[in-house]
Amino acid sequence: MFKKLISTVANRLPAQEIHAHCDGPCGVYDPASARITAEAVLSMTKKILDLQVPASNDPQAMVAYNNTLSRYIAIKEEQAQKTKDDLLILWTDYFKPVHLEKYPDLHDTFWKAAKLCSACKVEVSLQHANELMAAVEKIHNMFWASKERNVTWYKAS
Amino acid sequence: MFKKLISTVANRLPAQEIHAHCDGPCGVYDPASARITAEAVLSMTKKILDLQVPASNDPQAMVAYNNTLSRYIAIKEEQAQKTKDDLLILWTDYFKPVHLEKYPDLHDTFWKAAKLCSACKVEVSLQHANELMAAVEKIHNMFWASKERNVTWYKAS
Amino acid sequence: MFKKLISTVANRLPAQEIHAHCDGPCGVYDPASARITAEAVLSMTKKILDLQVPASNDPQAMVAYNNTLSRYIAIKEEQAQKTKDDLLILWTDYFKPVHLEKYPDLHDTFWKAAKLCSACKVEVSLQHANELMAAVEKIHNMFWASKERNVTWYKAS
Amino acid sequence: MFKKLISTVANRLPAQEIHAHCDGPCGVYDPASARITAEAVLSMTKKILDLQVPASNDPQAMVAYNNTLSRYIAIKEEQAQKTKDDLLILWTDYFKPVHLEKYPDLHDTFWKAAKLCSACKVEVSLQHANELMAAVEKIHNMFWASKERNVTWYKAS
Amino acid sequence: MFKKLISTVANRLPAQEIHAHCDGPCGVYDPASARITAEAVLSMTKKILDLQVPASNDPQAMVAYNNTLSRYIAIKEEQAQKTKDDLLILWTDYFKPVHLEKYPDLHDTFWKAAKLCSACKVEVSLQHANELMAAVEKIHNMFWASKERNVTWYKAS
Amino acid sequence: MFKKLISTVANRLPAQEIHAHCDGPCGVYDPASARITAEAVLSMTKKILDLQVPASNDPQAMVAYNNTLSRYIAIKEEQAQKTKDDLLILWTDYFKPVHLEKYPDLHDTFWKAAKLCSACKVEVSLQHANELMAAVEKIHNMFWASKERNVTWYKAS
Repeated sequence: MFKKLISTVANRLPAQEIHAHCDGPCGVYDPASARITAEAVLSMTKKILDLQVPASNDPQAMVAYNNTLSRYIAIKEEQAQKTKDDLLILWTDYFKPVHLEKYPDLHDTFWKAAKLCSACKVEVSLQHANELMAAVEKIHNMFWASKERNVTWYKAS
Repeated sequence: MFKKLISTVANRLPAQEIHAHCDGPCGVYDPASARITAEAVLSMTKKILDLQVPASNDPQAMVAYNNTLSRYIAIKEEQAQKTKDDLLILWTDYFKPVHLEKYPDLHDTFWKAAKLCSACKVEVSLQHANELMAAVEKIHNMFWASKERNVTWYKAS
Repeated sequence: MFKKLISTVANRLPAQEIHAHCDGPCGVYDPASARITAEAVLSMTKKILDLQVPASNDPQAMVAYNNTLSRYIAIKEEQAQKTKDDLLILWTDYFKPVHLEKYPDLHDTFWKAAKLCSACKVEVSLQHANELMAAVEKIHNMFWASKERNVTWYKAS
Repeated sequence: MFKKLISTVANRLPAQEIHAHCDGPCGVYDPASARITAEAVLSMTKKILDLQVPASNDPQAMVAYNNTLSRYIAIKEEQAQKTKDDLLILWTDYFKPVHLEKYPDLHDTFWKAAKLCSACKVEVSLQHANELMAAVEKIHNMFWASKERNVTWYKAS
Repeated sequence: MFKKLISTVANRLPAQEIHAHCDGPCGVYDPASARITAEAVLSMTKKILDLQVPASNDPQAMVAYNNTLSRYIAIKEEQAQKTKDDLLILWTDYFKPVHLEKYPDLHDTFWKAAKLCSACKVEVSLQHANELMAAVEKIHNMFWASKERNVTWYKAS
Repeated sequence: MFKKLISTVANRLPAQEIHAHCDGPCGVYDPASARITAEAVLSMTKKILDLQVPASNDPQAMVAYNNTLSRYIAIKEEQAQKTKDDLLILWTDYFKPVHLEKYPDLHDTFWKAAKLCSACKVEVSLQHANELMAAVEKIHNMFWASKERNVTWYKAS
């Protein structure tokens, strides 16, 4: 009885009042997180393509090569996943229906960027890693424009 | 030189050949994962609303109450995040441009479902938890229809 | 003094009253989680055995092969661990002493299933991956029988 | 064809040869991990019961109290889960059928210890936290006896 | 014998040759990660202090309040831990003995910054959250100066 | 107004009063966690160097070899990271300015130990894995001496 009453009351309350503190303009969103990890994906992709296969009759060098290659692939995987996670937080939590009117390609931009993250895992592709960087830069511009702020795009590497 | 050669060759290769094994039709996707965690979100929401506040002059009962409330909120948070993650895997990895033609509300369906996951974290709302279950059921139907399979929708709880 | 009093009182209270909400029949358990990840283990095992080693004088193809192989092994590892975790949640949290009387091979069933998860990590074995699927199906049947519900066993792949 | 051949060969090979390196006697298992986290569970349980509720008309003290209580509950939860994970690794990976003959209560010991971990999450119970410590000590003794080594039981706190 | 030979050879090789690819100047380090999470710690601290306790006779509002407070504390905890992790990666992986000569307070700076992260978890302190922001800004300046690059400090919130 | 008042009051309170419960002498710190994972790093390093490359014309054996090598590298990575995390918890949370006077090489000891963890990831080096064990033993001695307790150093493997 008590429970039913509470939930009935709860459902009638305007939702925005309950989570006003969380959707306020002071939320900390910054595409720089996704930019840093996308840079790591690009860096790892380059390093994997750079790695020289040692002579197969040098077991010690083969072990070092396999350890390095294995780690680079795992780091690429992890960083691509983090890029995807950070981009999707922007898409699902920061961007609101009001933004969709202003940026009609919002969904398409994020869908393609997320699919590029997956492609950078599945492949060792310089082209896709560079396209991911471009997608993150596009989102950086869209994001700061939506806040009417001018934040310079830079790369750490 | 060697590096440049490799990446040049790599970029000219048709992409589908490289990751043919990963985008094949034998991939294991199942909206049941998202359904199970969404059920847990609904269950935790109900239990939080059910919890009876003990008399404030009973310190032992207050400690037990706070422990239970704190855990239920944390479990709701975790399960809502898992639901969001699992739904977004379907959106970014399973669904392809060809599906978008068939399901023009694909992006909108997933955007709203993801936003419901966040709402179920931010609030203790029976209404939103039920709407999340409905969104997952809609995605269940859309998913199995796209595979031309008939899988019965059921709930574990 | 105060502390001692509280803990003394706490220890005398009947334990079942404190966590009644958590062990209730509305808990959300479903062996489908373990079934989905076990399917992924089987799928990855097959794909690893399917992978064709490229000619060693094609460095670009070797890089793609190593990336794919490395990822498949890592995904197999992760999915086998998740299968193990989900099965052990059923064993430690869902099944109670009263079930043990009805299913005398309860411990043995879960011990063997957990050991199969580890075997599927350590090896690339089609046989063990198939045995793991069979173990999960057995647990699916045992679980739903214990709840006196009839839930159809199906595979997503 | 090639695939079928490989898997056929693979399944005929004796399993122990493949993972000989992993089940060797040089594996690093030590119940000390579970002992440390179980101590943290006990410590957090005591501290939660120790916390003095401030006067409700002191908002600053209430905020500090809630922050501390919330963190203690979360740390207790996390450490109990780690204890459970570490104990179950011993049960599923270290202990083998040959040990079961020597320790017929092996399954029962681990089942009860795992259930104590869950109880220490669900409740704030000094009794169950102490019983968990006793269960870990019992497993410490069983484990080192099985390796015919004498390792002194000590506590860090 | 073979093993001994390999490890003997391995230990005689100059270490820098093995991990040249990993310590190269193209590594992606950026204190912006720590800045974003430190901003979230500050934001959460402010929001916790801002939260108005509802009237105790309004159960629905109390549930919403507890949910929000619990989440803010958990997010503060998580973000402070991420800040700590990201700062310590800079300290342990980016900064090298050669930097220590140039920045004699390197260890002290990072020790204090890490301790501020812990203080921001343990307390709800506006002062410590602001001091953490100042510590991250100091590290931002130290880091980019060590790379002889000029990167503007900005805040997302 | 209310908010400003609270934070003003909060900032004037002596910090030690707020987190007295958390920095108490009953905190559970034990370098044994870092010792166990460092042993695993050493064990994995040895096993990687031990692995015999199979004949390249035996595809089934090559698959088993690659699976094992890949897993050993991943486990070494994970355990080295855990060792680093556990050591840094001691450095940032347990050791206080008062200890620094007694152990002037405190910062240097932990910096080098953390850098050894990274080296054990980047390389497959028996020498560095042994040096890491020695660093952990030094920290074990420093830690227990600071608590004026005598705890015997032992290894699980």
